[in-house]
Amino acid sequence: MLKNLPKKIKIVEVGPRDGLQNEKEFISTDVKLNYIQKLIDSGLETIEATSFVSPRAIPQMKDSVDLFEKIKTTDSFKKSSVHFPCLVPNMKGFETALKLGVKEISLFSATSSEFTQKNINATVEESFVRMEEIAKAAKENSIRIRAYISTAFGCPYNGEMPASALVDIIERFEKLEPYEISIGDTIGVATPAQVDSYLKEVLKVVDKSRVAMHLHDTRGMAVANTLVSLEHGISIYDSSSGGLGGCPYAKGATGNVATEDLIYLFDSLGIEHGVDLEKLVDASSYILEAVKKKTPSKFLSAYLKSRK
Amino acid sequence: MLKNLPKKIKIVEVGPRDGLQNEKEFISTDVKLNYIQKLIDSGLETIEATSFVSPRAIPQMKDSVDLFEKIKTTDSFKKSSVHFPCLVPNMKGFETALKLGVKEISLFSATSSEFTQKNINATVEESFVRMEEIAKAAKENSIRIRAYISTAFGCPYNGEMPASALVDIIERFEKLEPYEISIGDTIGVATPAQVDSYLKEVLKVVDKSRVAMHLHDTRGMAVANTLVSLEHGISIYDSSSGGLGGCPYAKGATGNVATEDLIYLFDSLGIEHGVDLEKLVDASSYILEAVKKKTPSKFLSAYLKSRK
Repeated sequence: MLKNLPKKIKIVEVGPRDGLQNEKEFISTDVKLNYIQKLIDSGLETIEATSFVSPRAIPQMKDSVDLFEKIKTTDSFKKSSVHFPCLVPNMKGFETALKLGVKEISLFSATSSEFTQKNINATVEESFVRMEEIAKAAKENSIRIRAYISTAFGCPYNGEMPASALVDIIERFEKLEPYEISIGDTIGVATPAQVDSYLKEVLKVVDKSRVAMHLHDTRGMAVANTLVSLEHGISIYDSSSGGLGGCPYAKGATGNVATEDLIYLFDSLGIEHGVDLEKLVDASSYILEAVKKKTPSKFLSAYLKSRK
Repeated sequence: MLKNLPKKIKIVEVGPRDGLQNEKEFISTDVKLNYIQKLIDSGLETIEATSFVSPRAIPQMKDSVDLFEKIKTTDSFKKSSVHFPCLVPNMKGFETALKLGVKEISLFSATSSEFTQKNINATVEESFVRMEEIAKAAKENSIRIRAYISTAFGCPYNGEMPASALVDIIERFEKLEPYEISIGDTIGVATPAQVDSYLKEVLKVVDKSRVAMHLHDTRGMAVANTLVSLEHGISIYDSSSGGLGGCPYAKGATGNVATEDLIYLFDSLGIEHGVDLEKLVDASSYILEAVKKKTPSKFLSAYLKSRK
């Protein structure tokens, strides 16, 4: 038990994008930039910065061009010491990213067409037609691709999704040559038993070094699910600082697992992550104040209380 | 991974005692009894009913004699189909329990004298002197003993406690011949790594069939800690319905892990527990309304939302 765990993991901080996209009140570009700088200062080396989506669909991301222009002025971008992937839903978004000098994009699909229909107005099949075109253009421009699979364990419209659907989407994505595939428990229904059995299937078709887990803590299972993933050798975890977030298209989904929860777990297991918890908590406190919310993370709540 | 888990587990529901003892506003005896009856109806077979403590120390438990008199009128008590252990801190409490016809008592100590001093005004050493006398009297009267060890992983005054301290207290308790030893993460600081390494030591001195885990979810680790405990073959879990509770002497401790969280986990793993989730949620909703609180359980929150 708790054997053969990875010695070092990578955290993909999704707070600025997945964490904020659902916030109704617009957060100014400067506040977003300050937040990102604080995340950088904490030692995070991959920060999903924004998405180039329709401002009608996701008003919170309407300043994505401005924000990325400002990110480009940071040392971390210039020295390429931090990765700033940006989510891109279609060719239009890709063209914006390309013009801006984005070095990495995230593409996404799901295991369920009901979900993609409501999310991007396309079937899963159609989403891959779109993505093939984008991936080709990205390759020609040396832009790296990260793949997201939503509703990997369950869909708000379709219920539980089988492991075979996940494996099928992974195999499709592999043709687009992503450097990483992130498995999303979009509505936070996954259980340790399910993660265990699904990962057994997943790892037959993709090497564990390229698999990321993107867990939501809707039902309080995210830490246990991370533990099971670690036992499978998975070393990449998506999370949002402070546990902000939730998918606007996924009914009842609360936030991503908090980066702080993962760090508490990793620290206890002696797993290296390179993040300064105190500085990360500062970043989370800053953004939580800006969105006027309390953290849903029990660990962070207890930590903030003990610091008083 | 997730192999050799117990096929069947026992839940020790501590809501009526550990869950309620910290509530400032007095909950009437009738409400407590209704709550207990609802817990019985859900299929729970062990329910910690109350404690015979000083009403000055724990005002919420001042009606313990009345409450137990009413419990005695239930079918479940008469038929001994449900166990109702009661917490007893001293000889005076034991004598009350004996007179009332209590069949099981819970005795408790801790790994830290700083904790027992504040809790029961005695060192750990002194607590065992007291308990030896009680245990002797209990044995003479065929009353079963359950042992609680508080602060097994960490103490609010002393910080992290070593596994050796826990093993030492278990060995002392064993002389009192308890039918079960419950290991308490009183302030909810335990991590999966710690649970793993401590249980390795614990199971050298006591059979896994007699070990219970009493986890608090203060830092959101309780489900992951349960998972690790299951992997060690532990089959007894203390929890409170709705996640109510917290120790009045343990600064910053929030509630026990919610019984609902455990059931979601057990169900996903195909582990038998004998509890009807829907009826349990009714019991939790009833008591949460009575104490005017929202559940701290993410699973229960999502469940209640989906039921609307």
